[in-house]
Amino acid sequence: MSRYLIRAMILPMTDAQDFYPQGEIAIDGDRIVSVGERGTAPAGFNPDRVLDLTNHVVMPGLINTHTHAAMTLLRGYADDMPLMPWLQEKVWPFEDKMTPEDIYWGSSLALCEMLRSGTTTMTDMYISEEETARAVLESGTRALLSRGMIDHNKEAGNRSLQENIELFRKYHNAGDGRIKIMFGPHAPYTCSGEFLLTVKQEADKLGAGIHIHLAETESEIATIRERYGTTPLCWLEQQGILGGQIIAAHCVYLNDAELDILKRYNVGVAHNPESNMKLSSGTARIPEMLKRGIAVGLGTDGASSNNDLDMFGEMRSASFQQKLLGSPEDLKAYEVLKMATDGGATVAGLKDLGKLQPGYKADMISIDFDQPHFYPRFSIPSHLVYCARGGDVRTVIVDGKILMEDGRLLTLDEQKICREAEKRARRIASEV
Amino acid sequence: MSRYLIRAMILPMTDAQDFYPQGEIAIDGDRIVSVGERGTAPAGFNPDRVLDLTNHVVMPGLINTHTHAAMTLLRGYADDMPLMPWLQEKVWPFEDKMTPEDIYWGSSLALCEMLRSGTTTMTDMYISEEETARAVLESGTRALLSRGMIDHNKEAGNRSLQENIELFRKYHNAGDGRIKIMFGPHAPYTCSGEFLLTVKQEADKLGAGIHIHLAETESEIATIRERYGTTPLCWLEQQGILGGQIIAAHCVYLNDAELDILKRYNVGVAHNPESNMKLSSGTARIPEMLKRGIAVGLGTDGASSNNDLDMFGEMRSASFQQKLLGSPEDLKAYEVLKMATDGGATVAGLKDLGKLQPGYKADMISIDFDQPHFYPRFSIPSHLVYCARGGDVRTVIVDGKILMEDGRLLTLDEQKICREAEKRARRIASEV
Repeated sequence: MSRYLIRAMILPMTDAQDFYPQGEIAIDGDRIVSVGERGTAPAGFNPDRVLDLTNHVVMPGLINTHTHAAMTLLRGYADDMPLMPWLQEKVWPFEDKMTPEDIYWGSSLALCEMLRSGTTTMTDMYISEEETARAVLESGTRALLSRGMIDHNKEAGNRSLQENIELFRKYHNAGDGRIKIMFGPHAPYTCSGEFLLTVKQEADKLGAGIHIHLAETESEIATIRERYGTTPLCWLEQQGILGGQIIAAHCVYLNDAELDILKRYNVGVAHNPESNMKLSSGTARIPEMLKRGIAVGLGTDGASSNNDLDMFGEMRSASFQQKLLGSPEDLKAYEVLKMATDGGATVAGLKDLGKLQPGYKADMISIDFDQPHFYPRFSIPSHLVYCARGGDVRTVIVDGKILMEDGRLLTLDEQKICREAEKRARRIASEV
Repeated sequence: MSRYLIRAMILPMTDAQDFYPQGEIAIDGDRIVSVGERGTAPAGFNPDRVLDLTNHVVMPGLINTHTHAAMTLLRGYADDMPLMPWLQEKVWPFEDKMTPEDIYWGSSLALCEMLRSGTTTMTDMYISEEETARAVLESGTRALLSRGMIDHNKEAGNRSLQENIELFRKYHNAGDGRIKIMFGPHAPYTCSGEFLLTVKQEADKLGAGIHIHLAETESEIATIRERYGTTPLCWLEQQGILGGQIIAAHCVYLNDAELDILKRYNVGVAHNPESNMKLSSGTARIPEMLKRGIAVGLGTDGASSNNDLDMFGEMRSASFQQKLLGSPEDLKAYEVLKMATDGGATVAGLKDLGKLQPGYKADMISIDFDQPHFYPRFSIPSHLVYCARGGDVRTVIVDGKILMEDGRLLTLDEQKICREAEKRARRIASEV
């Protein structure tokens, strides 16, 4: 464990919207000791190393609240297609040919990309998730992992549930607590009520949260209406699934009463604007959610429907999407930054993340602001949302450890991972 | 003048959608000699230099068909505000304090950012445009420049028209033809019919085109309806302004009959998706324009309403915006790339640009594809639209001259420009 002193412009993402143009952060081990103007480190704080990041902005690491990391292997495999043929003819047949080892390399590729673009925590749902756990441990990042579960039939459902339980036993709190395990029933339209209830009971026994897709498309709404005569969220409430930690991804189609339900049960929303746009899913009612005090985080969804995992692009798209259909005042820059940091931490149930303040975990990133697209420097939050790109991130620290420095990844063998991912994706495509 | 041989993956943006994974381009002076697989350079072609860009994709330089370069000085000065207070309380008072020298530095900053993100040609409209011309000449880029003209009163209108004529005399075809001068009457709602007709006559005398804002907002439609009982485009037609080269920026609110008018008069459309989203202007009917064979290019608009000048972000937003309100099949990756290259060249009236093919101008860029967000390489066009960011551009060649190599700008003093722009923007803000 090391002690670092960082000198930079600092945007700690506090509620007071502090900003320190000549700031200083002291880190001891995995925790932040102090944040403020130059000279605020405690007397006698003796760093092992001083990181001089003048001209960089340091902010909390970004939290990606909904993704399917290993789907990087499908990046560019199929685009610009209607949803059902895309899934049935392209995505599902490809996924059928993926081995656990493929999941490991696809997840590793995602982690390279995430680190490079400033994401320090991801909330993931997929198959062979223990392979993703392995990649996360090696990368040094933070993750909430769940086994995506669909009960086509009772046996398949139960098998996947056993895998999720096994995942929990093996990896919950692994990597000095960097990994948390959640349960991942896929969606109301792919899981029966009986199965969801069993999942919920098992999750409750272990004190684990649930990560589920919800109200993503109009067709989902129609399906649930036809099947149960109600909406996906109301049906979940009727089944007794709500309560405890729940991350609901997408939440595009919700009426006022349902927004109240989200608030009542403290359901966290993972908002995925680029996926919702690229797949023509629709526009989630984010400003109304925020007005009600519902916790909202940002997510990229999988690389097959985005197609990158760049949370800076996601922030910009989140704001643009709302403004397009509302007013220029919707989702202001600082609000969007909050969603990608503090909001994400709340959704993920991580109490000491999402802000830079004493006692919080030392998860942070630096963005090189000495570039033409960041001048003049009238507003740092505005520049981070409307001008910054993933590639502008130069330093990444997670749990007090430097994972990227001056644009070099220190924990992952990027060259090897890119080559392996390419080879495996080609093999899978050839087998489809 | 030099002879270069470039080795790279090559996406020439031809109608046949060619792609050369191990390609080769021969350049002699300002022109492309050959494009194809390795070994297609003419026998006896003797390059001064071989540029080995293996693992880079080389494509035509991007064409930004609508911007106000010097507005980089307003980047982040005012955001997330309703349109009219934003203009009246922030943008216009700021612009009132800008000196010609400020315009020069603001334009230079824009050119740094454009080169860094792969834009080789811009279509610009602003005040003190001779300062922008000066910056363009120094940068080595290509530009179509026009003096933005508003006739608040007859005298102001005529003075600005004289400036535009002077600009034409001094700079048209300057820099080995890299600069073209157009005429820039601001918009139907800010110019009288009489003034527009005078401008059109002067432009015709000089053989110059016209660059104008058109049908950008619902409020513009209402104003013109109230004033003239018709739509902005129909009014322009009635005034006899259409015909000859016209670049119409925005074109958000057009009915079917107006789309037919655009087609009939060969009006080129400059589509600005990010500005249209950020200012809540609306969504232009791009797929319907393309179906009718209307020429459509992409533009960033000014940095105050975007807030960057990154055409890669603009491409992604163009596609996402259409898909959100239409279907996932709208604005496919290759169509968007065409808009940003070949479509832009057509709109700009530049006949030998926008594609890499023998005899065309040697304007091209390289994108470093050896990065995690470009793996696996299933589709180069998809990756360029959905994953690439301005910062991935490493090489820029305009008119056969290397302006950026390995991420270093060779013609502009970037450090000095950033510092000057910062200083001047602060001074202006303090004077408002």
